[in-house]
Amino acid sequence: MQINIVAVKDMVQLDITGPYEVLARTPGWTVDLVAESMQPVRTDRGLTILPMQTRESAKPSDIFVVPGGAGIDAILLDDAWLDYVRRESERAKYVFGICTGSLLLAAAGLLRGKKAGAHWQARDLLAKFGVSVSDERMTVDGKFYTSGGVTSGIDMALRVVADAAGETVAKKIQLAIEYDPAPPFKGGTPFTSPPEIVQAVLEDGKKRRAGREELTSKAADRLQQKI
Amino acid sequence: MQINIVAVKDMVQLDITGPYEVLARTPGWTVDLVAESMQPVRTDRGLTILPMQTRESAKPSDIFVVPGGAGIDAILLDDAWLDYVRRESERAKYVFGICTGSLLLAAAGLLRGKKAGAHWQARDLLAKFGVSVSDERMTVDGKFYTSGGVTSGIDMALRVVADAAGETVAKKIQLAIEYDPAPPFKGGTPFTSPPEIVQAVLEDGKKRRAGREELTSKAADRLQQKI
Repeated sequence: MQINIVAVKDMVQLDITGPYEVLARTPGWTVDLVAESMQPVRTDRGLTILPMQTRESAKPSDIFVVPGGAGIDAILLDDAWLDYVRRESERAKYVFGICTGSLLLAAAGLLRGKKAGAHWQARDLLAKFGVSVSDERMTVDGKFYTSGGVTSGIDMALRVVADAAGETVAKKIQLAIEYDPAPPFKGGTPFTSPPEIVQAVLEDGKKRRAGREELTSKAADRLQQKI
Repeated sequence: MQINIVAVKDMVQLDITGPYEVLARTPGWTVDLVAESMQPVRTDRGLTILPMQTRESAKPSDIFVVPGGAGIDAILLDDAWLDYVRRESERAKYVFGICTGSLLLAAAGLLRGKKAGAHWQARDLLAKFGVSVSDERMTVDGKFYTSGGVTSGIDMALRVVADAAGETVAKKIQLAIEYDPAPPFKGGTPFTSPPEIVQAVLEDGKKRRAGREELTSKAADRLQQKI
C-alpha cells in the first residue's frame, strides 16, 4: 500500500506526525510526504521536515492523507494542489482528512453531500461546500475518513489501519506505541473543557478564524462556478 | 523558557513530535532540537527532520527532553552525548524522558535511587542503573518526569506544561489540539491489550530487546566503574 501525505509549510506538524507513526508501522505500507518541491517544509511551530516526493514524482495513492493548519488554508485556492488532491482522492481506496484537512478535500469538491468532520473551531465551515457537518471525533463516509483536531488523527489512523489491514495489526501498533491515553485533565473538546478555557481558545483564534472564513467563502464560490 | 530536545537518527519520531506540539504551543517557550551536527536526522520510520542546534551551539536548557528508540540505545555508550545529557539535566529545572529516553538519563547516572518509568518493553532495564522502576504511564520524581512508551509523551508534556506554566495554559493547549482521545480499541498497555497481541508484539521485538539488554548491561558496567 502506498500512503501519500500532503506536506505544505505552516501545516500543524502533529497532524502529520501522529498518523505517520501509526501508518508507517503497518507491515508492507510505504508512507511518503508529498510537497510542491523537495525543499524542507517548515511546519507552523518551527519543526522542519524533508519531503520524500513532489506531486510529479509521487506514486499513485492507495491511501491519501491531508493534514490541517494554516498552511492548508493557504492552498484552498491553489489549482495545482486542488487538481492533485482531486486526482489522488479519486484513485485512492481510502482518503483521510485530519483536523482542517477536510476543508481542502471539500474545496476540491470531494465531500459534497457527504458527512465529514474537522477541528472543532472550523468544522462548521464545511457546510459552505455542501458537506453534512459532523461533530464527532471520527467520521467515516464511504472511503472518506475525517477526524477532528490534531490528536484525533492518531485515533483515526488506527481506524484506517484496522479497516485496511485488519484489527490485529492496528491493535499491535496501539500496544507498540503504548496508546492507552491518560490526559492529566478532563477536556479536549468544546463539550468537555471548562467554559472559560473554551472562551479563551476561541479568543486566541479569532484572527485565524476570520481569515479562514474569508478563504473558505472564496473557495466555495469557485467550486460553485466550476459545477 | 528554553526547551532542548535530543535529536538522534533512528529515534522514534512521535516521541519527539508529540511533546514538541504541546511544548511549542506554550507562550514564551522556545523549543530546539539539538543534534550532533546540523545534518538532517532520519527517524526510525523514515521521517526526516532538521535539527535547530548542535550540542555546541545550543542554549542552556530550562527544560531538557530525551526521546527514545533504537537511536537512543545507540548512544548509551557515547561519552559526548552522556556528558551533554549530564550537564543539561543538571542545569535544567525539568528533565523529561520519553519512552526509552529514560535509559539514557539512567546511563548518565542521573536516575540512581529515583523512581522512573519507560516503554513497557524496556522499563525493567532501568533497574540495572539503580532506578526504582515504575509501571505507570507518568512518573514524577523531583525534577525528573519520565513517561511510558511513545504516545505517553503527549500526556506527560501536558503535565510538564501545567507544572511549569500553569494548568490554564495546559488546558488551553489540550483543547487547541482537541486532545480528548478515543482509541478505537481497548488496549495500549500489556495490562489492557489482549494477551495474544501482547505476545505478538513481544515476539516482534525480540531482536531489539536482546540488543538493548546487551547495551544497557555495558552502560551499567561503565557507570559503575565511574562511581
